Amino acid sequence: MSGQPQRSDGFRPRPSSGVLRARCTWSQDYTVHFADDLLGARATFQQLFGERRTLVVAPRDVWAIHGTRFRALTTSLGLDLHVLVLDIDEASKSIENALRICDACVEHEIGRTDVLVAFGGGVCCDLVTVAASLVRRGIAYVCMPTTLVGQIDAGIGIKGAVNYAGKKSYIGSFRPPETVLIDPSLLASAPAWTAMDGMAEAIKIALIRDAELFELIERDGPHLLRTRFAGPSALVRELLRRSIDGMLQELGPNFFEDQTYNRKVDFGHTISGSLEERSSHRLTHGHAVAIDMAWSAALAVDLGHLAIDELARILTTLAACGLPCNHRLLTVGLCQEALAAAALHRGGKPRLVIPDGIGACRFVDELHELPPERLAGAIARLPAC
Amino acid sequence: MSGQPQRSDGFRPRPSSGVLRARCTWSQDYTVHFADDLLGARATFQQLFGERRTLVVAPRDVWAIHGTRFRALTTSLGLDLHVLVLDIDEASKSIENALRICDACVEHEIGRTDVLVAFGGGVCCDLVTVAASLVRRGIAYVCMPTTLVGQIDAGIGIKGAVNYAGKKSYIGSFRPPETVLIDPSLLASAPAWTAMDGMAEAIKIALIRDAELFELIERDGPHLLRTRFAGPSALVRELLRRSIDGMLQELGPNFFEDQTYNRKVDFGHTISGSLEERSSHRLTHGHAVAIDMAWSAALAVDLGHLAIDELARILTTLAACGLPCNHRLLTVGLCQEALAAAALHRGGKPRLVIPDGIGACRFVDELHELPPERLAGAIARLPAC
Repeated sequence: MSGQPQRSDGFRPRPSSGVLRARCTWSQDYTVHFADDLLGARATFQQLFGERRTLVVAPRDVWAIHGTRFRALTTSLGLDLHVLVLDIDEASKSIENALRICDACVEHEIGRTDVLVAFGGGVCCDLVTVAASLVRRGIAYVCMPTTLVGQIDAGIGIKGAVNYAGKKSYIGSFRPPETVLIDPSLLASAPAWTAMDGMAEAIKIALIRDAELFELIERDGPHLLRTRFAGPSALVRELLRRSIDGMLQELGPNFFEDQTYNRKVDFGHTISGSLEERSSHRLTHGHAVAIDMAWSAALAVDLGHLAIDELARILTTLAACGLPCNHRLLTVGLCQEALAAAALHRGGKPRLVIPDGIGACRFVDELHELPPERLAGAIARLPAC
Repeated sequence: MSGQPQRSDGFRPRPSSGVLRARCTWSQDYTVHFADDLLGARATFQQLFGERRTLVVAPRDVWAIHGTRFRALTTSLGLDLHVLVLDIDEASKSIENALRICDACVEHEIGRTDVLVAFGGGVCCDLVTVAASLVRRGIAYVCMPTTLVGQIDAGIGIKGAVNYAGKKSYIGSFRPPETVLIDPSLLASAPAWTAMDGMAEAIKIALIRDAELFELIERDGPHLLRTRFAGPSALVRELLRRSIDGMLQELGPNFFEDQTYNRKVDFGHTISGSLEERSSHRLTHGHAVAIDMAWSAALAVDLGHLAIDELARILTTLAACGLPCNHRLLTVGLCQEALAAAALHRGGKPRLVIPDGIGACRFVDELHELPPERLAGAIARLPAC
């Protein structure tokens, strides 16, 4: 079930040339498992943690709901478990909180062969990823995301980051989890906004690569949201599995973001950051992503890559999931600034991702393809806000 | 000259099994170059930094000596250079100082494709490695070590760490430099203790794998130390090249320390940490390593792996280089505690490295091979302190 780092080899020195060379290669597998009742899964916990000392990091609200069962399970198994309950929200994705986890590692004498657990939402997963990458130059961690956005997005990849000196995700690390455990039943008790944010990311994956997933969300997404993913369980699992699989397939060839700037998973993530910022973060990430996707889809119509009725289906689905399709902050000026900013960290080009029909996408690479009148035209296609 | 990360691929999902799998593979080459007058090397600087924004991190004493020439060179080339001068010593290998480098990165708008430079000794290299691994989840850095211990040890590998909550190197990261530049002429102005610490590490590499290097140090080491490595330059370069090459050869197959606990480079590093700690760090790292090597060599005589006259050559060479071979803190009790502590982070066994003749070594894996009377016997073979 676990995946330890596997090799670091291939060093080929050539002292004769006067230049000495080294090659560092590092590899780690990880797996995503589904569990229907994780906090009753004795065998899974025994297999995962066994003799290892374990530090669970959980937000206060998550631990208040699930802590008793978590404790009962690990106590009955005789596991060496310690818990750090943190008061965290989106604003507390800070280096100070990552270091509080490091402090707890010192306090509980977490060593090289021990393990951290992120039992919470996206912020919790991020903080644990950063801490696990730093303690003893990197120790194992397991993700048990408790929110939809955690289960299909933040808890799935290998990126962790904290905001720093006012800059979003300026400091962080790449470190794969050892294992990710997905329990849909945890979603019932998660805050509603995390479900909406998660649904926005699921719609993203659907639009860029999985038309069947889009149809599932179009048909059943609103019901699933309303019932807090209470069922039907096959449907919930299908939503999760397709979203996670799609995400991993997209991340896989470019996990360390060093292979290409053309990342399909950037769909919905070009102007959304500026929207969040300008709204002083009153717009959640998922809401901003939804607006970005709606606008990008409207652009795709203008550029001849999406039919009018496909745009209508996208806008209707977003709205039916309680997500916005427009906002008073969405102006040509904001779009221009955001595109220029995106180009700065995408190798000099905006590389805007737009739908190419439903379930596929393409890139608009160049700024000159996005003149102000085209940006304005796309905004005009969206419902009034 | 540079080495960017090269690939991250090989993802093979198997959604049909109900378990989703991901493989993260990461690889980076780096090179160690020699330069005779680095701060006059226009082509090297142009090639290294070119259009990239560059943040140089230097200790105050190093910048006071070399800052003017460094500035003059980069100004004449029109490089986009910023400098952070830090008041650092061994005691300031802290997360706060690593974050001061991150602060300077924010201030000077260092982005994903920019570069940090460590221009100083081992502590400077450590701090820059940690900061470079964190900024934007990892940016490039170049090492220009200004001390012997930096040039053959701290600036050569891929490990960076800071002390944390009283624990040595508790927090850190593995991150390869892009390039390491070795200029022997910088050694003339480095503090004497760094030369002695460096010489201890050179003797370590010599004893575990390079008899010719040992002969070079035995014959010329004291003279090189006395003249601050002023020459003969071929000899200085040979000392550096053999030490660095030996270090890279040993690190290469186990860069991430995830392949084996049997690390020859741990020679001299089993009881030295306890010696440093018990002396309240009045013993430098190199002095403690020298005492550890002397004691380990004495043990090798007792175990039949080193001749008496070989031990004598080792002790004489250490002493001639101004390094201690014994200390009032070196007791059987300290050795026992240190061996037990070493076992904790070497997979349950002490894995003490001892010479096997000069230029080779072997491991004493088990604690029962090191009873108190044998530990005492080894101490008794050392010159009185």
